[in-house]
Amino acid sequence: MNARSSLHRSLRLPHDLPLESGAVLPRPMIGYETYGELAADGGNAILICHALTGDQYVASTHPLTGKPGWWTRMVGRGRPVDPARHFIICMNVIGGCMGSEGPASPHPDGDGCWGLRFPVITIADMVRAQAAALDALGIGRLLAVVGGSMGGMQALQWAAQYPDRVASVVAIATAARHSAQNIAFHEVGRQAIMADPEWQGGAYTAAGTNPARGLSVARMAAHITYLSEAGLTGKFGRNLQDRAEVGFGFDADFQVESYLRYQGMSFVDRFDANSYLYITRAMDYFDLATAHDGLLAPAFAATSARFCIVSFDSDWLYPTAESRRIVQALVAAGRHVSFVELSSPHGHDSFLLDAPTMNAVVDGFLRSGEGAAA
Amino acid sequence: MNARSSLHRSLRLPHDLPLESGAVLPRPMIGYETYGELAADGGNAILICHALTGDQYVASTHPLTGKPGWWTRMVGRGRPVDPARHFIICMNVIGGCMGSEGPASPHPDGDGCWGLRFPVITIADMVRAQAAALDALGIGRLLAVVGGSMGGMQALQWAAQYPDRVASVVAIATAARHSAQNIAFHEVGRQAIMADPEWQGGAYTAAGTNPARGLSVARMAAHITYLSEAGLTGKFGRNLQDRAEVGFGFDADFQVESYLRYQGMSFVDRFDANSYLYITRAMDYFDLATAHDGLLAPAFAATSARFCIVSFDSDWLYPTAESRRIVQALVAAGRHVSFVELSSPHGHDSFLLDAPTMNAVVDGFLRSGEGAAA
Repeated sequence: MNARSSLHRSLRLPHDLPLESGAVLPRPMIGYETYGELAADGGNAILICHALTGDQYVASTHPLTGKPGWWTRMVGRGRPVDPARHFIICMNVIGGCMGSEGPASPHPDGDGCWGLRFPVITIADMVRAQAAALDALGIGRLLAVVGGSMGGMQALQWAAQYPDRVASVVAIATAARHSAQNIAFHEVGRQAIMADPEWQGGAYTAAGTNPARGLSVARMAAHITYLSEAGLTGKFGRNLQDRAEVGFGFDADFQVESYLRYQGMSFVDRFDANSYLYITRAMDYFDLATAHDGLLAPAFAATSARFCIVSFDSDWLYPTAESRRIVQALVAAGRHVSFVELSSPHGHDSFLLDAPTMNAVVDGFLRSGEGAAA
Repeated sequence: MNARSSLHRSLRLPHDLPLESGAVLPRPMIGYETYGELAADGGNAILICHALTGDQYVASTHPLTGKPGWWTRMVGRGRPVDPARHFIICMNVIGGCMGSEGPASPHPDGDGCWGLRFPVITIADMVRAQAAALDALGIGRLLAVVGGSMGGMQALQWAAQYPDRVASVVAIATAARHSAQNIAFHEVGRQAIMADPEWQGGAYTAAGTNPARGLSVARMAAHITYLSEAGLTGKFGRNLQDRAEVGFGFDADFQVESYLRYQGMSFVDRFDANSYLYITRAMDYFDLATAHDGLLAPAFAATSARFCIVSFDSDWLYPTAESRRIVQALVAAGRHVSFVELSSPHGHDSFLLDAPTMNAVVDGFLRSGEGAAA
């Protein structure tokens, strides 16, 4: 990534942020990254929205892990979202732990960090914070909002909440609402965190403890939902880990156990347990139809945005049926929508992996919108 | 249930029990229940095998919960397995916690309970213990072995391990091996238990602690896998629990959260955390093909038993594809097999619920075997 214009940026919103709960977040911090240059007419701005455990480092090295950006396959030189022609912004969501205001941020009264005093937020609140940050950056209308998973929820929310402010929406591997099963898996993760005595009622920073074991279990449970059964079988099957026979004990005999344990342990080095509670809660609360008596189409009645909806056939977390439901609502609302179900063995995680067809679809969709705008 | 011949029975095996690991279990206790009377020729004995968190109280009141038996829809007067014509035995598996030798049993040397000193067991070990207990009860050949889920694994194992000792096998909602995804979910549960400081390295009884929170989280994660996405949506959807609007907090806003929490909390009152570790481990180790270079058919080469395989279309824990694999192996081995995939919205749990077609299938299969035997 050569064309980056900044690194590790953050800003404090000039105004307090009203929240859906009725609470107000006093002038929250927003951590963000940008790539490319804003065109003179401001018409080339693309907002990338991250998923549950993602962050603003979409195409730049993660400051804690040293790993490449989480979506360099989609964002970068020669990629569908390209700093050579787009001004790309990616912000850490509020409630997060990578520079935006969240439960691990200092409390405004100077009394330690927010902890559970942080107000419960929603996807709409995340989007409201992003819009306020874009105001502060002098960016009005977005050429596109692009996201997968929870990022796709934000992208859909953008069109509903700021119908005149976004020209194109790309929502990948996502849903317009969290299902009972989605909520159930999140609740297991939250209970795992809150069951850890080191969570200390959310005040672990003040207590000098760390609910790493609970957060690790939460991540393990969630991680299974990101992969398909076939993908797990193809990758691990019943293969043993560094041994010829089972060990008749509770060590990680199987590769899949070792893999999951690693996923859990490495996650806690880069993520805050309370942020996990708040962001999963925001996702569980997400249902674009709630404001319209359970009907989804009215959520898209006001926008003139074009939509690109992409699902993966092995994604059982946000299955294709949920994308079809979005497409039906969009068509019913008279919107222009391109819908593609892609085949992949990798389950929900497919959107983060090498998927040339996904790239071709997003590239074509974005270019056709740029052509129309030109 | 009127025709019970006994209650809360147990026996100590007259010999030590050799285990697959090479360890030996010194004269283990076996808790069991029986219903009906053994025919003079001993030809009407049916063994019911229970699932992961089941026990011997298949058709009698659970002594801890006071609830009816877990499979009164299948076992009872006028049911497919009927004490009016069958002598029905159901035993708690070794490693369990309802009367059979397990980690919560007293250690033979008198030094507290076994805890993690209990040897790791397998499905084959469970079946070997059952066979030894049947020897002690004077029961040779079984008219049938019947089980669902882990009970189905034991039923299949019976045919492979004691090919001349069982005439009919009924294996419902099960698999001949644990998949990578199956192992992954179990590993999450084990890690949740072992992450609980009150687990105390397995020595919680001696320590006077109780890893209830870890066990509860394990049960919650597992419980999701017992239900289908459609079933959860149909039963709970996004319905709120005793409130008109979300509470913007971490209480159980949604019915599905409240339901899961209840499932977790009530489970710990009747189940031992170490037993959960041992039995999930036994299931993960289960692969009938391992002894035959990865081929399943040879496992059924020696038996002359008839098989009835039943799956449910919404069961994603042990999906129909796994039953088809068993059927293919049975046919390849020249066995008689009846296979039925039933439609149900209730996922894996379907085998425990009201399923008239399942009952009709099992009833017809058992009666045709009895006719042949007569």
